[in-house]
Amino acid sequence: MSLSELKKILKSTQVNEDPSDLNAYGKDWSIYFPPSPCAIVFPESQEDVVKIVQWAKKYKTPLVPSGGRTGLSSAATASNKELVVSFDRMNKILDFNEPDGLLRVQPGVILQTVQEYAKDHGFYFPVDFGAKGSCQIGGAVSTNAGGVKVIRYGMMRSWVAGLRIVTGSGETLYLNKSLRKNATGYDLRHLVIGSEGTLGLITEVELQLASAPGPLHVLLLGIEDLSKTIEVYKTFNKQLVVTACEFFANNALDKVLAAHPTLSQPLDARYPYYLLIELEETSGDFSEKIESVFSTLLEEGIISDGTISQNSQQSEGFWALRERISESIAPFSPYKNDISVRSSQVAQFVNECSELISKKYPHFEVVWFGHIGDGNVHINILKPDSLDKQKFIEQCREVDVPLYELVARFQGAISAEHGVGMAKKSFLHFSRSPVEIEIMKKIKAAFDPDNIINPGKIF
Amino acid sequence: MSLSELKKILKSTQVNEDPSDLNAYGKDWSIYFPPSPCAIVFPESQEDVVKIVQWAKKYKTPLVPSGGRTGLSSAATASNKELVVSFDRMNKILDFNEPDGLLRVQPGVILQTVQEYAKDHGFYFPVDFGAKGSCQIGGAVSTNAGGVKVIRYGMMRSWVAGLRIVTGSGETLYLNKSLRKNATGYDLRHLVIGSEGTLGLITEVELQLASAPGPLHVLLLGIEDLSKTIEVYKTFNKQLVVTACEFFANNALDKVLAAHPTLSQPLDARYPYYLLIELEETSGDFSEKIESVFSTLLEEGIISDGTISQNSQQSEGFWALRERISESIAPFSPYKNDISVRSSQVAQFVNECSELISKKYPHFEVVWFGHIGDGNVHINILKPDSLDKQKFIEQCREVDVPLYELVARFQGAISAEHGVGMAKKSFLHFSRSPVEIEIMKKIKAAFDPDNIINPGKIF
Repeated sequence: MSLSELKKILKSTQVNEDPSDLNAYGKDWSIYFPPSPCAIVFPESQEDVVKIVQWAKKYKTPLVPSGGRTGLSSAATASNKELVVSFDRMNKILDFNEPDGLLRVQPGVILQTVQEYAKDHGFYFPVDFGAKGSCQIGGAVSTNAGGVKVIRYGMMRSWVAGLRIVTGSGETLYLNKSLRKNATGYDLRHLVIGSEGTLGLITEVELQLASAPGPLHVLLLGIEDLSKTIEVYKTFNKQLVVTACEFFANNALDKVLAAHPTLSQPLDARYPYYLLIELEETSGDFSEKIESVFSTLLEEGIISDGTISQNSQQSEGFWALRERISESIAPFSPYKNDISVRSSQVAQFVNECSELISKKYPHFEVVWFGHIGDGNVHINILKPDSLDKQKFIEQCREVDVPLYELVARFQGAISAEHGVGMAKKSFLHFSRSPVEIEIMKKIKAAFDPDNIINPGKIF
Repeated sequence: MSLSELKKILKSTQVNEDPSDLNAYGKDWSIYFPPSPCAIVFPESQEDVVKIVQWAKKYKTPLVPSGGRTGLSSAATASNKELVVSFDRMNKILDFNEPDGLLRVQPGVILQTVQEYAKDHGFYFPVDFGAKGSCQIGGAVSTNAGGVKVIRYGMMRSWVAGLRIVTGSGETLYLNKSLRKNATGYDLRHLVIGSEGTLGLITEVELQLASAPGPLHVLLLGIEDLSKTIEVYKTFNKQLVVTACEFFANNALDKVLAAHPTLSQPLDARYPYYLLIELEETSGDFSEKIESVFSTLLEEGIISDGTISQNSQQSEGFWALRERISESIAPFSPYKNDISVRSSQVAQFVNECSELISKKYPHFEVVWFGHIGDGNVHINILKPDSLDKQKFIEQCREVDVPLYELVARFQGAISAEHGVGMAKKSFLHFSRSPVEIEIMKKIKAAFDPDNIINPGKIF
């Protein structure tokens, strides 16, 4: 390894060995592995990235691609003297193709920047989640980020029209070329999306922009029985366009209200679970339709109560009850899992999983919330005050295996959107068969024969 | 090779060596390679498929998976003593999961059957194209079939929630398990989709069904300048939901009317090009909106004339003008190409390509039509009466290379939806780089190390 050579190949200002920066750039939002990169490099162009990979091959130095470092599975953590490749300086919007609705960006562009650009130009970028102000497009592609609009718009996968990457062999690939239809062999773009930075370094993304939606309205509903959610969703979806379908438990509401005095309880009474349904107004008789569906659901006892936002401020207030959960429970050092099952099975999974956890640790409080409409549930076990943090993590880890066994019985995914990274590597077999894992390793080797691109992640 | 052993492993009624059947089952709708399989086998279950692959490995006999054999690139042609694996007998709908809108089918189910089943159960299967009455789901998945609704609903890729395949190693994989969100490594499902039967034999498909659309209305517009299409599409799309955007040239209309006396010219006058726009009615003021957009387009001279269907019979009549083109030109032994470029570049491509062909062969008539909304154009060169068929094909082949060079200059795909098969193998480099092709070959080897699954297709 010769960092001095790297400084000559690039500019010396592009290589950083400052210890506090190493600490910051070496980790992501997960907290499991202490950061320990050898240095950070800041490419400023496609050509820089190629040079970095060639240097890395020569000196057998592993690379960890680094975006906004908001990942939760340690896929962007460098804990083994790797060279962190930060895309902070490759943050330009390169081209806007208005007729085709295509936006070409460098990987370091922040997601929120893309959302705002799209909006300013009469379009819409529909992938949306909490970390949007910090996460970069390259990272969002690498994790096939989902978020709150998946039920209507799909994941990042649906919005990546083209990709430029530099493979572990230093080769540049231009995948799919933003063609809507392309039947010329295997779609390698879809391998790279969600590959957690293990197949190559993304240097350019061509995003497909969507049409701007009509006005959005939010309902906040109280339900006794979580299994009724499917019926709620389908009843709305028959007549209206559902753009989001989220849930949270009553104790999640407690935590959010405790942490945010300006927010208030949405309904007169409290219920075991709440559903947040967002609808797009697409017709003149929208209000009548909502009222009609709402009344039906109440009369049939599918929901216990509910309220419809009357203005955007109220909508934002309802969204805040859902979106501020993570930050509100953060002080409790939650042990997190993020799983998915088929949407219709979420309620049953929540019941069985709650039982599993409380049998072993009746004193643990679990906060349940998530994207129930697409089967994705966030499981947060809160650390009791009296319990030491390390001991807490150890105890939670004892629940992991039975929890993943349960996920496997439901034919679910041990990671719905956070990825595998390092955090869930040893549990991958609960969701992927040995033969699949073997094939994935061969694919990895095809892109990165020297195993220098984010090694030790996923497998 | 021991077919007698195969007849013992399965039932003898599952193996067919009848010469006329060999001829029928050995080919698809392409006409380039004479069929010559060694036999046809009809698996009736997942287990049969595993046995067939194991037998094929043992005797080093290549397999050609066979669906409806409506392919146009010879991907389902067996011209080299391969064993055709026909999924005709694996044609059951296995399971309907109503809460999640998932339909689990065997690969031999006909596409139209799926469409009708979905409709009968209050859902909608949005992939639609001419061969729907004959093509099988396994084939539609293998070619990532597109069709006329892509602009609104995407390709097969968007509707395959899960897949079971048997790899060339005889291993069974269950990919993605119909999870909406799944971040557990590489999405192998998306490799198999569009892989033209080269990675394994599909034994089960889990399809995601969509919500039924509102009433559909069709407009038939006459335009002078094809490049105005983008503006037409966007103007409609701002206020309405466009579900299809197709085009055809005036001589296509001639051919359809000549072949179908019951159909009539849609507009008072004739125009160089026609656009078929299909819209979904989603609001009460739909008619006013259409009229308003239509008037605007006329006033601004973007379109020259047009008409809106008043009833479903008229809509069907307009669709017939587009959908019957292929059969109407069939008697002219057309030499076909199916390319894609970015949607906004179709008009320019049509101009440059027309010029290219007419420079070399001014006596050739070219019929242009296709899915202009997603950049996919069908190029059909008609055989002049006086020209011998073989000579005609040779002459057309001389145009192929400059045509593909043009496609490459437009950064397009030499095959938009028909696939590569055998017909376009030697031209793959016009759309995929050498490094991509190398990686694809390694992926192929990972799934099929003995190269027994549809060898000689794509590469």
